[in-house]
Amino acid sequence: MKNCKNYIVTFQPTNEEIEIPAGTPLKKAMDIAGLNFDYPCGGRGRCGKCRLQVRKGSAPPSESDYDHLDQEEIDSGWRLACTIKVEDDLVVELPSSDSKEHKILVDAAEREMKLKPHLRKIYRELPRPSIEDQRPDWERLRSALGDNNLRISLPALRRLPGALREKKFSCTAVLSGNEVWGVEAGDSEDRMLGIAFDIGTTTVVGYLMDLLTGKQLGVSSSINPQTKYGADVISRITYAGQETGGLERLQKVIIEAMNRIIEEAVSGAGYEKEDVYAVSVVGNSCMHHLFMGLDPKHIALAPYVPVTGSPQDVEASALGLEINPAGRVFVLPNIAGFVGADTVGVILATELDQSSEIRLAIDIGTNGEMVLGTRDRLLACSTAAGPAFEGAQISCGMRGTRGAIDSVRLGEDIVYTTIGDEKPKGICGSGLIDAIAVLLKAGIIDYRGKIQSSEQLSATRGERFAGRVMKHEGSTSFLLAPAEETAHGKPLFITQRDVRELQLAKGAIAAGVDILLSEYGIVPEDVFEVMLAGAFGNYLDKSSACAIGLIPACLEDRVKPVGNAAGTGSKAALLSVGEYRRTGLITDFVEYKELAAHSKFTEIFGKALYFPKQKKCM
Amino acid sequence: MKNCKNYIVTFQPTNEEIEIPAGTPLKKAMDIAGLNFDYPCGGRGRCGKCRLQVRKGSAPPSESDYDHLDQEEIDSGWRLACTIKVEDDLVVELPSSDSKEHKILVDAAEREMKLKPHLRKIYRELPRPSIEDQRPDWERLRSALGDNNLRISLPALRRLPGALREKKFSCTAVLSGNEVWGVEAGDSEDRMLGIAFDIGTTTVVGYLMDLLTGKQLGVSSSINPQTKYGADVISRITYAGQETGGLERLQKVIIEAMNRIIEEAVSGAGYEKEDVYAVSVVGNSCMHHLFMGLDPKHIALAPYVPVTGSPQDVEASALGLEINPAGRVFVLPNIAGFVGADTVGVILATELDQSSEIRLAIDIGTNGEMVLGTRDRLLACSTAAGPAFEGAQISCGMRGTRGAIDSVRLGEDIVYTTIGDEKPKGICGSGLIDAIAVLLKAGIIDYRGKIQSSEQLSATRGERFAGRVMKHEGSTSFLLAPAEETAHGKPLFITQRDVRELQLAKGAIAAGVDILLSEYGIVPEDVFEVMLAGAFGNYLDKSSACAIGLIPACLEDRVKPVGNAAGTGSKAALLSVGEYRRTGLITDFVEYKELAAHSKFTEIFGKALYFPKQKKCM
Repeated sequence: MKNCKNYIVTFQPTNEEIEIPAGTPLKKAMDIAGLNFDYPCGGRGRCGKCRLQVRKGSAPPSESDYDHLDQEEIDSGWRLACTIKVEDDLVVELPSSDSKEHKILVDAAEREMKLKPHLRKIYRELPRPSIEDQRPDWERLRSALGDNNLRISLPALRRLPGALREKKFSCTAVLSGNEVWGVEAGDSEDRMLGIAFDIGTTTVVGYLMDLLTGKQLGVSSSINPQTKYGADVISRITYAGQETGGLERLQKVIIEAMNRIIEEAVSGAGYEKEDVYAVSVVGNSCMHHLFMGLDPKHIALAPYVPVTGSPQDVEASALGLEINPAGRVFVLPNIAGFVGADTVGVILATELDQSSEIRLAIDIGTNGEMVLGTRDRLLACSTAAGPAFEGAQISCGMRGTRGAIDSVRLGEDIVYTTIGDEKPKGICGSGLIDAIAVLLKAGIIDYRGKIQSSEQLSATRGERFAGRVMKHEGSTSFLLAPAEETAHGKPLFITQRDVRELQLAKGAIAAGVDILLSEYGIVPEDVFEVMLAGAFGNYLDKSSACAIGLIPACLEDRVKPVGNAAGTGSKAALLSVGEYRRTGLITDFVEYKELAAHSKFTEIFGKALYFPKQKKCM
Repeated sequence: MKNCKNYIVTFQPTNEEIEIPAGTPLKKAMDIAGLNFDYPCGGRGRCGKCRLQVRKGSAPPSESDYDHLDQEEIDSGWRLACTIKVEDDLVVELPSSDSKEHKILVDAAEREMKLKPHLRKIYRELPRPSIEDQRPDWERLRSALGDNNLRISLPALRRLPGALREKKFSCTAVLSGNEVWGVEAGDSEDRMLGIAFDIGTTTVVGYLMDLLTGKQLGVSSSINPQTKYGADVISRITYAGQETGGLERLQKVIIEAMNRIIEEAVSGAGYEKEDVYAVSVVGNSCMHHLFMGLDPKHIALAPYVPVTGSPQDVEASALGLEINPAGRVFVLPNIAGFVGADTVGVILATELDQSSEIRLAIDIGTNGEMVLGTRDRLLACSTAAGPAFEGAQISCGMRGTRGAIDSVRLGEDIVYTTIGDEKPKGICGSGLIDAIAVLLKAGIIDYRGKIQSSEQLSATRGERFAGRVMKHEGSTSFLLAPAEETAHGKPLFITQRDVRELQLAKGAIAAGVDILLSEYGIVPEDVFEVMLAGAFGNYLDKSSACAIGLIPACLEDRVKPVGNAAGTGSKAALLSVGEYRRTGLITDFVEYKELAAHSKFTEIFGKALYFPKQKKCM
């Protein structure tokens, strides 16, 4: 070898060097150097995909280079790796080893992460069969994919002979793990979408994501059609258990709704259902079970155990989801019967499990799920807030739609705003919290929640509102909007009973927070940040929330709404294998605290029903 | 530690020793020693399954020992491992580590192998959920199974909550690899059956096997109902390709037939379909494809490639096979378009791939598949023998059923026997080969296959049969049985055309053997053994087979029928994970020789049409 001319090739960006005899194909040099470089057409100069840039040294362009590259590219040193023969010392720059692994932003919680989809597509041009090469179709593809340990699913095997022969044995394999789940004719490497679902008890949202770029391409949502079989989780569990075929029916209607969302989202973005290869799903434990066809009965019965607390991936076809036949579904795990995959989504989105500071995340709904802690320890609990925050059980309550009073402030008089700036029809959760905070501040209700009589008020600072306190349907009530201001010509009251309902709801949340803090062995001031997840958390006025004691008053400045964090978690699990796998670690890591089992729950809840006497913590 | 009393425990049969402080639970000692011992109830002394024998030293029996063992057992040192506390130097004998791995005999080829089923059952008594232990059902089971890397299938997950609660959280998990495919209430560890199928073009056979003992419990068979869509492989491939829904129909009818066989076999043996957990399948490439719903078109078109040449395991439910819902199907791989999984079964059964001597296996049917070689090199080919050996295309030919002439000998006159000792109705393959051999021996047909005229015969040793040679339907024929001897009162002839048909069939086989030998670079005498697989091989008279040149004459004493070796291979793959996996290696290892591509095929085939002039090899 000494008397042959040798050359040195340096590979960027790793600066690996290799010395090889003159005339060695660069492809061979890279093989020897152990560089894993991709030659879809087998290095025959045909596909034009093995591009790299020669930074230093001479590598005259080949015919294939002229076929696949334009003059400008050739002038700046771009070549096809497969046609280079080394006749000079070269410095070549390889394209970044996995260009799909760049960081992306997922909205709301502004979560940065590495894009690493569950499925990968690999395009290959296979040698065509001949009497000299009679390998079966699968072995032909497997060998082109370069991994003898690969397996293939039966549905993919069934499509294989047709797909191979449609475009002259050029095809794209769709893989997950070491299994080929799909085979498509020709080159479809540039198309791979996914949909991240957030199945709420009331609303289902699907985010259409480009799995190759991480970009959101659209969003669609609909009412959860299970609503007609029961408005809340418990009534659906009852329906599933007591009606013949109840579970199957509930599953069928949610799948149908998801299929409509898929259809709407992809057609809205100019794609086809077949372009969707992955679906991720979060939801509370009950929604999770009904979606997967798991019996939710034991969620509702003591000791409240779900069927599974592990991430579960299944073929989309097994669930009836109409996406690409190779498509897979990634379902996030539950922590407990009442702390579901949606909470895991919140943890994933907010990275609570990686936090060096103590943080508290609260997702307020009919149930309030909350998670407290750091990367060293996380506690979670769920508390039955009841429907008051969603406007139900409140005399003039309504959902946060047009005409709902959504904020109330104390000026000269009571000042409110409505959604859509329309005449008020009722009051929604955030408006109610504001209203109660205002009434507290004005001294119209005392710390026990009692609406003062107009006589009591005349004697105090609440005097100017005394005229608004009156009997309504037999109980002392506060007139929020007189008949002439409202859309329907009827007055809107906050009744004594409404105040009690709110006390129960906020007391439940506050008691949960209180118990988590004490189990953690800290006081409210030790909490670095309070993250409010979900739509309600977004609209909630943090000052009012603290005023009524929903959140410890000393934390007012540390409250941050984090949007639909459950949905963001779903997106993260869809876009990244690593994030999805982390959900399994999260459920193992989080300590679930059963409030019902807590010895002092009743006492703490009883105290939490009161409103704070003063704004600051002790 | 030095001043505590320590004891030494020696574990038999491995003689592992461990020194531990007095009072250490034996369970802990075994954990420390890294011994993988099974405590179904978690070591609570409840299930009585963790038995071992104390050979030396004192270990007073516990209360649990008295609950679960009889006095004789206790006297001979049997104890439950979980209740022993070490208070003496002990020698304990562990039950053999995997008692299921004993050797078993599989019939016909008398194949010895280790029993190691694809699925395993593990019984466990789980702690019941409580407010202190709210683990979800799956995590509870997974932890009892002691492997955090286990996965569970969606159908098993759906059955899990019901199965756990049916028998107080005692259950049996059905696993394959690291996935739980089924969960059953209570202890069903003692029941696990499988069915080994051999799907022939004409007949489907199912062998019911006990997966825990390796014993055959029954066998059922039926006509392959695909026959009504085409008698042979090519006509079924045509039907599948040209009729709308043809492939689906052919798949449906074979699955239905297999379901009837399953039903018949299990009910005949006193079991239920749910006791069947595994199915193995062999068949020629076309039967393989139709069973799996794979398009067989390219098997029939040059260059004759199957869709897959790898073993494929799938859920039984994905194919519509009605066995236990956790059941799996293990389909053996094809070698080439015309050397299918049945041939792989033959290789597995005969252990050709492990042979130190050169062996030749031939499976004679419409196609003759043959494999030649040793553990160092194996060659395979397929040759189109046509239907003559099955009695088709022969003037008085019939299948080997009652009334068929199945052997012919030369005595004073022509002597024949029939199946069932009835009056003859026709002649089957083995009878035809005998008859031709007799006619050759008697000089009635010459080495070119020409039936001598009665005039020629009168002048030779064939004289005494001259009266049997006559014109029949315009061609010279030999009267095998006169009208008065036959069941239907019509005479049975061997016509000149029949001889030609047989020459084509035997020539095809002989040419295949000839080419394999020459590709291997050996002469017939180098072959140590000729194994004849399949029913035809069983009935064939080896002397006749050599006389007509079907098999080289010098190998007559080395011919051995090996029964339904394909079926035996199917059983082996069913009973042993290792044997099933070996099939993948076999297809990689075997070199397939395409006869159509062989430059001298026509010449060799042409020569092989002749009958041997003399009985011995050159």
